[in-house]
Amino acid sequence: MMYPDHTIPEIDQVLAKSQQAFYQYKNSSLKERANFMRAIALEIEALGEELIKTAVKETHLSENRLYAERKRTIFQLNSYAEAAERGDWLEARIDVGNAEATPPKPDLRKMLVPLGPVVVFGASNFPFAYSTAGGDTACAFAAGCPVIVKAHPAHAQTSTLVAKAILAAAKKCQLPDGIFAHIYAADTEKSAYLIKHEAVKAVGFTGSYTGGRALFDLAALRKQPIPVFAEMGSTNPVFLLPDKLQKDHLWLAEQLCSSITQDMGQFCTNPGLMIGINSEALDLYVKQLTDKIKEVVPQKMLHKGIARNYVNNMQNAISQRRVEVIYQSDYKMGEEDGVITLAKVSAKYFLANPQLHEEVFGPYSLLVVCSDAEEMLGVAKQLQGQLTVTLMATHTDLATNVELANTLQEKCGRFVLNNVPTGVAVALAMHHGGPFPATTDARFTAVGADGIKRFARPVSFQNWDNAFLPEALKNENSLNIWRTVNNELTKSALG
Amino acid sequence: MMYPDHTIPEIDQVLAKSQQAFYQYKNSSLKERANFMRAIALEIEALGEELIKTAVKETHLSENRLYAERKRTIFQLNSYAEAAERGDWLEARIDVGNAEATPPKPDLRKMLVPLGPVVVFGASNFPFAYSTAGGDTACAFAAGCPVIVKAHPAHAQTSTLVAKAILAAAKKCQLPDGIFAHIYAADTEKSAYLIKHEAVKAVGFTGSYTGGRALFDLAALRKQPIPVFAEMGSTNPVFLLPDKLQKDHLWLAEQLCSSITQDMGQFCTNPGLMIGINSEALDLYVKQLTDKIKEVVPQKMLHKGIARNYVNNMQNAISQRRVEVIYQSDYKMGEEDGVITLAKVSAKYFLANPQLHEEVFGPYSLLVVCSDAEEMLGVAKQLQGQLTVTLMATHTDLATNVELANTLQEKCGRFVLNNVPTGVAVALAMHHGGPFPATTDARFTAVGADGIKRFARPVSFQNWDNAFLPEALKNENSLNIWRTVNNELTKSALG
Repeated sequence: MMYPDHTIPEIDQVLAKSQQAFYQYKNSSLKERANFMRAIALEIEALGEELIKTAVKETHLSENRLYAERKRTIFQLNSYAEAAERGDWLEARIDVGNAEATPPKPDLRKMLVPLGPVVVFGASNFPFAYSTAGGDTACAFAAGCPVIVKAHPAHAQTSTLVAKAILAAAKKCQLPDGIFAHIYAADTEKSAYLIKHEAVKAVGFTGSYTGGRALFDLAALRKQPIPVFAEMGSTNPVFLLPDKLQKDHLWLAEQLCSSITQDMGQFCTNPGLMIGINSEALDLYVKQLTDKIKEVVPQKMLHKGIARNYVNNMQNAISQRRVEVIYQSDYKMGEEDGVITLAKVSAKYFLANPQLHEEVFGPYSLLVVCSDAEEMLGVAKQLQGQLTVTLMATHTDLATNVELANTLQEKCGRFVLNNVPTGVAVALAMHHGGPFPATTDARFTAVGADGIKRFARPVSFQNWDNAFLPEALKNENSLNIWRTVNNELTKSALG
Repeated sequence: MMYPDHTIPEIDQVLAKSQQAFYQYKNSSLKERANFMRAIALEIEALGEELIKTAVKETHLSENRLYAERKRTIFQLNSYAEAAERGDWLEARIDVGNAEATPPKPDLRKMLVPLGPVVVFGASNFPFAYSTAGGDTACAFAAGCPVIVKAHPAHAQTSTLVAKAILAAAKKCQLPDGIFAHIYAADTEKSAYLIKHEAVKAVGFTGSYTGGRALFDLAALRKQPIPVFAEMGSTNPVFLLPDKLQKDHLWLAEQLCSSITQDMGQFCTNPGLMIGINSEALDLYVKQLTDKIKEVVPQKMLHKGIARNYVNNMQNAISQRRVEVIYQSDYKMGEEDGVITLAKVSAKYFLANPQLHEEVFGPYSLLVVCSDAEEMLGVAKQLQGQLTVTLMATHTDLATNVELANTLQEKCGRFVLNNVPTGVAVALAMHHGGPFPATTDARFTAVGADGIKRFARPVSFQNWDNAFLPEALKNENSLNIWRTVNNELTKSALG
């Protein structure tokens, strides 16, 4: 189904409503926000099979995967609702004043307050969890911000269904309908207009480097720049250390095979690089990995555009100097099946060729073969910022590669030991982020309740009477939240 | 004394050393960092009278003020050291894994880690507290980052003395000397070179809008953009509500007189705007304020450039349509004394003229006279982002101006009630920041220990063995810090 783009005057109207809704919603209680988020979860569940069938049609993802992703989306909404209510994210701080001191010490109370209307650009590869009612939207609602979702054209119908669920929940919770808007803006000029609009105070984005960087640049050029949280994916290097390879090559082959090919590698945490040191164990691992991967039946990719981009990027990568294809599934140009591809290159040629450092989004991984540990360290030093870096290593490996680990930590947002990078747990201790170009802001996460803080900023209240303070900062602490009072964390009320 | 600029090759060398030092210093313990900061405080104290005399000569600030500012600087270093050690800022989070769960739940542990070398541009108006060993430097050291200070040309000799104190402290603490560097780069091309250098990971700046915006733009245009924390000042509007004016006009006049003229208004929190409703009480307040201000003897401004800029900006402001001068101290062009100036304009002309919304850095304040509460709300809605907004209001005023307060909170980083905005307490609950153009990043503070977080980013460790985790995330919690374990704050060790 095609949806015509909103016109510029329509977008202006939508944003005026968002801004109006903000002045009401920002003063909602944590409980009201949590209830709204839980109501959205229920409405999405109530969409039942229709939602799944629509998404299968639009994305080629399997029913099983989509049922699991919907469950994840509902878990996100409910768990962020719980975190919102728990109130740790408010970072409430109180320094009690003392009028008798010289000079008099003012009473200062600080907490996070919402930024304002947030525009969310959903991901093609997660029609639920990173789209219309996904993590960005859930975090913005938790923070107290209205949301404007720009529907992803690749699953606009799915997005429309979810948007209706959100608006139904808003109605049930008696929230102003400006709290959520669903915009069709396939034309990039329209997206740019959204980003540049004065009413918009922050942007969430999941997608390509090109798209994310373009939004970041537009936002930075505004008269009043706004934060852009673009999660742009990465190559997620997996370092295969010698002792681990020696001891666990079969387990490694199984793990990596599944991580590279699951859902045709269409994950921002897909392991697109593997780095090992030339050895018999490495050869054995490659053989076992190849044998496993040969058994995987290619599936359709998300849509034609993604399949075409993948083939182009993959072909470009394997045509680079001294890159050898280890294995590739059969394919015909123009088909939408993912072309599973394993390739290899020596570290020397990898280091000399920036193109090999770029993400190839799809079922592709490049093995970088180093001659020794020093060369492996050289590869680590030259890596770009990553969402994840994985070490496959025994204690012996770790003890003998201290500088490698010290270097790799600088390159990533999540540092994995003996797990695969795919599978991003929704948990407070998750950091789904990482240094540029993995994201445009390494200080914030796109997954886990800390993501709420992307859409908030601190305000200090100086010398306010208790009666006029926000609830979270009043003496009595009726919300029973953790607050830092005179530098100590406590749930106690003030005397 | 003149210091020749560093050459580009010298800057390259300095930054290579900073980067090298980072790889060592980032792994220092919280205790080591705190000890280093305390050692700096001692070295600065040991500079004694020489430091004060040098600063008096370079800045024209009084001895008393400079003694107080040094005390503040030392307090900052010591209190941020304490906060660094307390470790709340690390935001340690642990979600304990469960290998038996379906799917298996990974063990995730997250904390803030330092960004890398930080460049600090100090302020002309705070030669100690916001300069060489000021808040930005202290926060960066606490976070685990090396610092490169670009000496302010207006107090380069003072800066050089403080730089020597920092290096002496580093030596005593056996830290690599690359941990701190002092660069002379009066040429703006050199400053730009610093910001664009690959080794630099963040920038702290206190100064003008023009300067801050230029750095922000350079940083955003980098291949790998970096955060710029520019604190660019603001007009710090003071809203004089009717009931308060009626009851407390004399007290208000005394408070505002001192806040406008102290140190010749050379504070980023100087109240450059006052907004009131036309009334007898307002007239009385203006008369009392004028009488008080007439008694103030003008002092020299910080340096000729600042005095000249002030006169230009002030003259431009008072020459705007329908702006009337209420009082102005005598002056001759070319003199360095601050020209104390009070002016007024009706809200109608204020709203129509964006130039009147710009900061005039110096002893200047513009009274905006509204015809009624609605017009006052209109002024509030049109304000730019501010470091502070102040309400002078009784309970009656607050109860009858709910929308005004709701609007003003959106405009500022610190919302003051019945205090003056000048005087920025060094406290955890302080937020010295605010929406653009007050700063380039409303989410972070330049004063108070939360400023440490400007120079850090989260990293999640997935599935790491306890022995190889950073100390703060190990089961035993030997640092005895607060951590969020399975969503609950606790100091307990893990079983």
